[in-house]
Amino acid sequence: MIVNGERTLSCMIRTEDGEICIDPATPVLHVMGKKYAIFILSVLGNDNTRKNFNDLLKAIPGISSTMLSARLHEMVGAGLIERHDGDIVTYELTEMGREIRRRLLPLIEYLANAV
Amino acid sequence: MIVNGERTLSCMIRTEDGEICIDPATPVLHVMGKKYAIFILSVLGNDNTRKNFNDLLKAIPGISSTMLSARLHEMVGAGLIERHDGDIVTYELTEMGREIRRRLLPLIEYLANAV
Repeated sequence: MIVNGERTLSCMIRTEDGEICIDPATPVLHVMGKKYAIFILSVLGNDNTRKNFNDLLKAIPGISSTMLSARLHEMVGAGLIERHDGDIVTYELTEMGREIRRRLLPLIEYLANAV
Repeated sequence: MIVNGERTLSCMIRTEDGEICIDPATPVLHVMGKKYAIFILSVLGNDNTRKNFNDLLKAIPGISSTMLSARLHEMVGAGLIERHDGDIVTYELTEMGREIRRRLLPLIEYLANAV
């Protein structure tokens, strides 16, 4: 939410340690909520190697090349992924992308076993 | 992804401890990816008290009653939230909802500070 050009933080979440103040319209959250985004982030961080488009397409079951292309574009824009141009374009996680992956995996692990 | 009526797990994510096998079409992930779902889950777990529709509507900035209503319906269906009927309908997290919130908060906390 932007009021007078400033983000509006809302301290709506209470934790054991205090509270979390966040803008519900945080762009990274919007990007991460889109279909397949968390799988692209997770797979791209495997083994800390750069990957190209076809590596990702093969590794993520069910994703189409159109959707992978759109998600990569958005995730580069959101600062989660860095694109390296060359003979073959490759992708890797940014520092923020890696930290988000680290914090995301315990959640994915739980869902993989629970559901 | 469902093949012959069975979920297809894909072991696509590698971690320090091994690998995570998950169905990319896991319904809970789909529900959690929708707009405001993670905020409803987070706020609903505040203070471990049951909350009614208006409590949630007031606590989450920018959400409309139509969207809150739709999300609650989906999240009850996905087993994240329990609905209690009475003079006033109230909601609380299920055990799964609470565990997901616990694992989600470190991620939200990072995003609140990083972005």
